[in-house]
Amino acid sequence: MNQSSLMATSYQDRCAQKRADQLALILPEWRLDPVPCIESTPNALAYLRRILSPEELALTEETDIAVLLRKLSSGELSSLKLTQVFAKRAALAHQLTTCCTEIFFEEAFAVAKELDDHLAKTGKTVGPLHGLPVSIKDLFSVEGLDTSIGWVGLTNNPAPADKSVARTLRRLGAVLYVKTNLPQSMMMSDSYNHVFGQCVNPFNRELISGGSSGGEGSLVAARGSVLGIGTDLGGSIRIPAGLCGLYGLSPSPGRHPYERGNPGQDIVRSVAGPMACDLATIERYMEVLPDAKPWEVDQHVAPVAWRKELASPGAKRMRIGFLVDDGVVKVQPPVARAMREVVEALRAAGHEVFEWDASSHKYAYDLWAKAIFSDGGEGCRRQIEKTGEPLVEGMLVGKPEDTLTTSQTHQLNADKYNYESAYLDKWVSSDIDALIMPNIPWVGYKPWTWVKSSAYVGYTSIWNLLGYAALATPVTTASKEKDIPDEEWLAHVPRNEGDKFNKEQYDPNLVEGMPVGIQVVGGRFGEEKCVAVAKAIELAMQRKMTSRASL
Amino acid sequence: MNQSSLMATSYQDRCAQKRADQLALILPEWRLDPVPCIESTPNALAYLRRILSPEELALTEETDIAVLLRKLSSGELSSLKLTQVFAKRAALAHQLTTCCTEIFFEEAFAVAKELDDHLAKTGKTVGPLHGLPVSIKDLFSVEGLDTSIGWVGLTNNPAPADKSVARTLRRLGAVLYVKTNLPQSMMMSDSYNHVFGQCVNPFNRELISGGSSGGEGSLVAARGSVLGIGTDLGGSIRIPAGLCGLYGLSPSPGRHPYERGNPGQDIVRSVAGPMACDLATIERYMEVLPDAKPWEVDQHVAPVAWRKELASPGAKRMRIGFLVDDGVVKVQPPVARAMREVVEALRAAGHEVFEWDASSHKYAYDLWAKAIFSDGGEGCRRQIEKTGEPLVEGMLVGKPEDTLTTSQTHQLNADKYNYESAYLDKWVSSDIDALIMPNIPWVGYKPWTWVKSSAYVGYTSIWNLLGYAALATPVTTASKEKDIPDEEWLAHVPRNEGDKFNKEQYDPNLVEGMPVGIQVVGGRFGEEKCVAVAKAIELAMQRKMTSRASL
Repeated sequence: MNQSSLMATSYQDRCAQKRADQLALILPEWRLDPVPCIESTPNALAYLRRILSPEELALTEETDIAVLLRKLSSGELSSLKLTQVFAKRAALAHQLTTCCTEIFFEEAFAVAKELDDHLAKTGKTVGPLHGLPVSIKDLFSVEGLDTSIGWVGLTNNPAPADKSVARTLRRLGAVLYVKTNLPQSMMMSDSYNHVFGQCVNPFNRELISGGSSGGEGSLVAARGSVLGIGTDLGGSIRIPAGLCGLYGLSPSPGRHPYERGNPGQDIVRSVAGPMACDLATIERYMEVLPDAKPWEVDQHVAPVAWRKELASPGAKRMRIGFLVDDGVVKVQPPVARAMREVVEALRAAGHEVFEWDASSHKYAYDLWAKAIFSDGGEGCRRQIEKTGEPLVEGMLVGKPEDTLTTSQTHQLNADKYNYESAYLDKWVSSDIDALIMPNIPWVGYKPWTWVKSSAYVGYTSIWNLLGYAALATPVTTASKEKDIPDEEWLAHVPRNEGDKFNKEQYDPNLVEGMPVGIQVVGGRFGEEKCVAVAKAIELAMQRKMTSRASL
Repeated sequence: MNQSSLMATSYQDRCAQKRADQLALILPEWRLDPVPCIESTPNALAYLRRILSPEELALTEETDIAVLLRKLSSGELSSLKLTQVFAKRAALAHQLTTCCTEIFFEEAFAVAKELDDHLAKTGKTVGPLHGLPVSIKDLFSVEGLDTSIGWVGLTNNPAPADKSVARTLRRLGAVLYVKTNLPQSMMMSDSYNHVFGQCVNPFNRELISGGSSGGEGSLVAARGSVLGIGTDLGGSIRIPAGLCGLYGLSPSPGRHPYERGNPGQDIVRSVAGPMACDLATIERYMEVLPDAKPWEVDQHVAPVAWRKELASPGAKRMRIGFLVDDGVVKVQPPVARAMREVVEALRAAGHEVFEWDASSHKYAYDLWAKAIFSDGGEGCRRQIEKTGEPLVEGMLVGKPEDTLTTSQTHQLNADKYNYESAYLDKWVSSDIDALIMPNIPWVGYKPWTWVKSSAYVGYTSIWNLLGYAALATPVTTASKEKDIPDEEWLAHVPRNEGDKFNKEQYDPNLVEGMPVGIQVVGGRFGEEKCVAVAKAIELAMQRKMTSRASL
């Protein structure tokens, strides 16, 4: 279609066309016909485990990339084979959860074959992720594909070249095969947009997978990808990771490449980071990332190696802060229980766990929101004006009256700096290894619920404001028996609209069996500390988190 | 004086009082009476060398801190002794050049004595700079002292605590003893302000020492300090370093602690860095800086160690880009000669030296200026409104019409990011070790000349925009014989007002014998590359730059 015919087409027609184009990229033999309905088949993961072959399952259920990478580099497993099985599982998962945006299996197979040939011919791998299929959020530009980010007006506009995240992954030897879904504007925790539709949770397709990296969360949880790269400006990696039972690392700015270049605020920086079922995969990825010299690809990356010695709890008694309630929105009972269980387990394991003062966190949220809203929604208006597609109401997007003047922006820079300084002093003087706390104050919502929630993301967004590394860490699953509202919950008088909504929405039946996680905060460039404390939690809970594979 | 009596005092009286208070902090036996006039004694350095004792000279003429640190840590030299001789020389230099702001010798002697006692008692040093006196720019807060930054309205307001740079230096074991002069607003290359007056160049007191770290440049060049810490947002370390014959390192943001917290733009970040007569001192300082864990003191510092292996040219043939003319302002003949000599020497030494395309540098200057002017001068107006002191005309300060809207700021963020990305690609694909180029297009001005110059700082400011490490590197001295305007210079048709001014001002007689340097640009986090290539230049020029001590 040329530009003028595009202009004449309704946004609905353009969306329908894009979805038809997308479906056409799935091999006919991988199409579900019919796609089982949500009512009959709420659990996409269980369904996939029924319909895939033992061989396909053996490869795609492996959650530790080190295992796959060993097989790939030894030639025991071809990249083409592995890419094919992950492509198939991604295609199936997509039909059940709408987790994908761009599908480019043919290109991926060609790249995989090249990598196989290279290895066969030279005996050498291209990089530490040689041959591994890796999924990425739609935001990251890949040559020849749209970077529509869910905006109708950005479809049918292929990127002329890979940008920093795709380039870095290719330098590492990874095979890109699919991009993943996200919400309109990327500023909500429910991954819906008009172009690709509603992404849902593979554990329960009635519920959302979160956002904005909700497609990534859903795909990785469905094991359609062993490693996905999302982005996080206020919780966009950690919230879907939490809802989908994954590890999701939101690094400090400067640790992982990102892709910028559109007009926008630069006060709080969005970051990219890995999402995976297995903590070992998060660590392995972060460990090999510097091999790609990402600072040669993205000017905002600092040359910091993975400091393995910091990423292990070792024999040392760690000092771990904790908080359960940030004083703004009280967390629902399953989250409070997850926190209790972890604190008890860590204490039982001999670690020093002490309460952390969160009294300034409301102020941090206000600073964060000021920065995020500072364009007054202009970026979104610019997108919808192109096509007439409507804006989703209730997103974390500024209104004209939120627009900051430059003088106000300059004051905000100072307020942020002074808050950062005070927090760092508190952090360092506490001699803290990491802070554990809730990741999301709720457990599960149906689509279009979140936009009515007053959209509080303060449990996650404070770490974006401060630029601290934070890791979503799965802990348990919601249980009707264990998570009965107790007297404290029932007696809680809501402090604000968001708190009221969060209390009202808690429904033990709705979220039964859904993943519940927490957040491990490691401080500035504290990615290793996050991993060390998450390992200590795994150890302390006396079971590998991956055993929840049986969920 | 209390606040209300301050309000009633004229700004002139407040300045006079501050200067009298300052002079009172110099021991009577260190006062010059009379202070020799500029006409009789233009060269402050030569004068100091005449009046100081051999012992005082032996200690203060040492330019390699490693030598002093060895003596300090072995107990061969006490910190008190060393601090006393540098304090004396700083006091004398100040009377000749107005290089200091806050003088706090008594406090310094007490700290030095504590360090000596600690070493005597424990046999251990406090840090790698144990006992070394270090001077810092007035901008850095020290407990109990003003941080007036040359604004009348900020005098008589002692800082309640050390901030990040002072804290870091103390963690390293340094002794702080003096803060140094700077221009009003810090946005000019001539260090004049109403509070402390006109700082001049110790090589020729008729000429300026540059700015904004002009007090630091002047003090270090006069050997009143062996190591000074300045700041750089558009050349403020490198320009005075160049004019004073020093090495001056403007690091990438994230490499050295800084002190922020006042409202202002955060698009281009000012950085702090070392200034010294000796390259070895720059390297030694940067090498030990991570020992202080500066990332625990300033949240914007990345945990990057000094990579010694990158800081040496080794036996490798290096690839060095060069440019002599950025197409905006043509450099004066001594600078062009310095560049020619270095290029020839490097080529003769076997390095690959290739021409660098600077055609985008004008665009970079425009982006930088937009960011710098974005507050429309509000920050300055806020300062002068307090006291009625006049604003110096001709500074690099925005006017109300330069104020950016938030939407324009967001566009500028995108333009900057895209320029950075393109430049990084060019840098990396060129496989360049470093770029050598002019630092300042002129050689020497009398006070109050620069403000009429149209204030082009594009040779330095581009590296602030891009966040690249850049090192001012001394090369030669201006010579009436060698730097006679040639035909090319005479035939040059000025491209703009700044170029016209720069051409008209060149006066071989005025700048005879003044230091002339260049700039070595090492890329993002390329501080080590800067040092490696500066070493290669030293080697190639077949003489230690420090031999210019005899200047």
